Amino acid sequence: MLETNLERIIDNIETLATFNATPGNGVTRSAYSKEDQQAKEYLINEMKKLGLTIWEDGFSTLFGRKEGKLKDAPVVMIGSHYDSVVNGGAFDGAAGVVSALETMRVLLENNIENDYPIELILMNAEEGETFGPGTGVSNSRAMVGTMTELELKTVKNRHGQTKLEAMKEYGLDPDLESAKRAPKSIKNFVELHIEQGPILEKDNVDVGLIEYLPGIGRYKMRFHGELEDSTAPMDKRKDALVAASKFVIAVNDIMKGLGSGIAGTVGALDISPNSNQFIPDYVQALVEIRTFDKAILDSTDLKEEFQRILAGIEAETGVQTELLEMARIGYPNPTPPSMMDAENVDKMKGICDTLGYSHAIINNGTGHDAMIMTDFAPTNMIYVPSKEGVSHHPDEWTDYADLKKGADVLLNLTMDICMENKETEF
Amino acid sequence: MLETNLERIIDNIETLATFNATPGNGVTRSAYSKEDQQAKEYLINEMKKLGLTIWEDGFSTLFGRKEGKLKDAPVVMIGSHYDSVVNGGAFDGAAGVVSALETMRVLLENNIENDYPIELILMNAEEGETFGPGTGVSNSRAMVGTMTELELKTVKNRHGQTKLEAMKEYGLDPDLESAKRAPKSIKNFVELHIEQGPILEKDNVDVGLIEYLPGIGRYKMRFHGELEDSTAPMDKRKDALVAASKFVIAVNDIMKGLGSGIAGTVGALDISPNSNQFIPDYVQALVEIRTFDKAILDSTDLKEEFQRILAGIEAETGVQTELLEMARIGYPNPTPPSMMDAENVDKMKGICDTLGYSHAIINNGTGHDAMIMTDFAPTNMIYVPSKEGVSHHPDEWTDYADLKKGADVLLNLTMDICMENKETEF
Repeated sequence: MLETNLERIIDNIETLATFNATPGNGVTRSAYSKEDQQAKEYLINEMKKLGLTIWEDGFSTLFGRKEGKLKDAPVVMIGSHYDSVVNGGAFDGAAGVVSALETMRVLLENNIENDYPIELILMNAEEGETFGPGTGVSNSRAMVGTMTELELKTVKNRHGQTKLEAMKEYGLDPDLESAKRAPKSIKNFVELHIEQGPILEKDNVDVGLIEYLPGIGRYKMRFHGELEDSTAPMDKRKDALVAASKFVIAVNDIMKGLGSGIAGTVGALDISPNSNQFIPDYVQALVEIRTFDKAILDSTDLKEEFQRILAGIEAETGVQTELLEMARIGYPNPTPPSMMDAENVDKMKGICDTLGYSHAIINNGTGHDAMIMTDFAPTNMIYVPSKEGVSHHPDEWTDYADLKKGADVLLNLTMDICMENKETEF
Repeated sequence: MLETNLERIIDNIETLATFNATPGNGVTRSAYSKEDQQAKEYLINEMKKLGLTIWEDGFSTLFGRKEGKLKDAPVVMIGSHYDSVVNGGAFDGAAGVVSALETMRVLLENNIENDYPIELILMNAEEGETFGPGTGVSNSRAMVGTMTELELKTVKNRHGQTKLEAMKEYGLDPDLESAKRAPKSIKNFVELHIEQGPILEKDNVDVGLIEYLPGIGRYKMRFHGELEDSTAPMDKRKDALVAASKFVIAVNDIMKGLGSGIAGTVGALDISPNSNQFIPDYVQALVEIRTFDKAILDSTDLKEEFQRILAGIEAETGVQTELLEMARIGYPNPTPPSMMDAENVDKMKGICDTLGYSHAIINNGTGHDAMIMTDFAPTNMIYVPSKEGVSHHPDEWTDYADLKKGADVLLNLTMDICMENKETEF
């Protein structure tokens, strides 16, 4: 079984980490920055050495293509993103970019004759931090056609630039239409990523395989009470925090009752005036749902459950309530889990077993480009260990030997799925 | 019955409002500022016109004394504070200072021969905002002996100066010992103040009489859970916000059960990380108690009640809890209500009736110098209406005619209590 080259992986990761706005304080490579441009030039140069067909789409997603024997056949896409958060690490995104690049190198130096074309897909705007919550996984959203002009013109980065302004300064005049790909044109999408969690390291497992990424539901609840000072008689109050507290507990109880297919949390309260001196007259609660099993969504109307609870709280406390959904337009709220291709998960288990790599199922994570791709094309992810689960931080670290193991799985899965009617034998 | 002079009151209030660091944006006359100095010089000059004996104590409290016929007799003190918050109004504090000054003028021009000495007490550091929570009512605390050197050296104003540094720049080398007064040396302390609440205006009442100011209890509760992301299984969580929510509801239920002698509120939560993405691992709750009836404190051990609730929450949720008291050293927590002199409240009702002024009991308010004085000497307060209840704001307003009515009550009460064995007849 072929393997990737550890030294080349180290060299690629370390070189990418030099394109960095904050040397000495982690890696900062924001989308559309000077460091993004430098990293892109480096990646283009690496792909040129391999003789790939290189282009950027209308959203600055970088592609490097190796044709296959089949004409007009759907493509096997492998890759990840090369942008980072501010003061992030050298592995989030870069690990997947470098593994895909190394996979392509090994295929070429071994003269593998693929049936289906293979494309490296190297993306530069995955991190939601750069333009604020909900603005990440930009390149994949552009590719599947859900990125909007409105977003480009409204969301802003820490320098106060809109996405469009930042793109134009970067030298890009985005063309959403030309960035779209037809669903049938993609045979597979495979992304390697660091776990960004502690499980693999803690359990001393080499490779994480993902069956699904949890679906997300988001609701905003508002509680409108009456502002009074703290001498107000107890039986005359409309205390928004008492009402919100009843809601927090009810959500916890309901979610417990729904079993292991779903989880839900009130993780944040915004309380006004949030002073010891006053009865709170306003609380906003953010409710975050994670779905693990599609069946639970068919049998449960969460919105109805929440509305029933809120009606009870209104009647009991006199506090007025509001329920706002924070769903993406065109998607259910909550969304079902993003299902990975099950057959390929089995194939990867076989690859790991053959290579002697331990593996575990890690059905955890959000906001990966692969999540966007699951509804569009058969998609898979590979996780490699994150030291102490730390990510988005200068201390983010993955041992290179661990990264190579994940890259070996990517390489061998890619070899398998780029062939027509390949007999899987491990 | 004697009355105060409206024009002199207006002139005094308007002149005091000119000693102001923010003309056009409310009144800003911080303790130990240039504007404090200017106001003090003006007040000294007004007292000089009356031929009073004028001095400052070791904490820059300004006194103006009219001797009485009795030698070595305890003094009737009347006055308030002349400092303000930043961008405050022209009445908070100043209303009481001007009313006391006018009272003294009327007594002198009518050749009233008082038995007990009368002192104007004009204070310059009442507002807790200036040096932060708990640092107000400074002059009265110095007088009763509870001000500390530690406070002077640690608390800081918005310019970064400690209280001591600000005092020294002001020209004052504070002497806490010499500022103390013997309890028996004060016969009465009477303070007129604006209501800083909406009741008098709303109910169209001229004068507010205070039977007591509520006592205060303060506790800080901490809830230590476990940080996990929002996919964590419901039955394995230690959610600090769920635990804190149970506490908020329990406090509300307990306080309701204790009847009308006490009120309690969780008004503020500090939640960490307070993000939709994570199970909160830390919540701090501030509990504010107000006591209206001393008997409730003898029959209820609130701390024990709270500890019992917290123990139950720990057992139920696995979240660790902590109870911290925020009591002032040497005081019970909660403190009993600050009881005003009941006989004088009755006298003031009589004065109001004779003058044709409507009156109501307003047992609400905190942090007045009079509150500090209640344990030290027979104390009374008079409230005058605040337009729309607004205070600590440029829009703070009391109609001058209303202020005069309150001042008339102060004048006639002072006349009564400065006489020995006076037959009260209204």
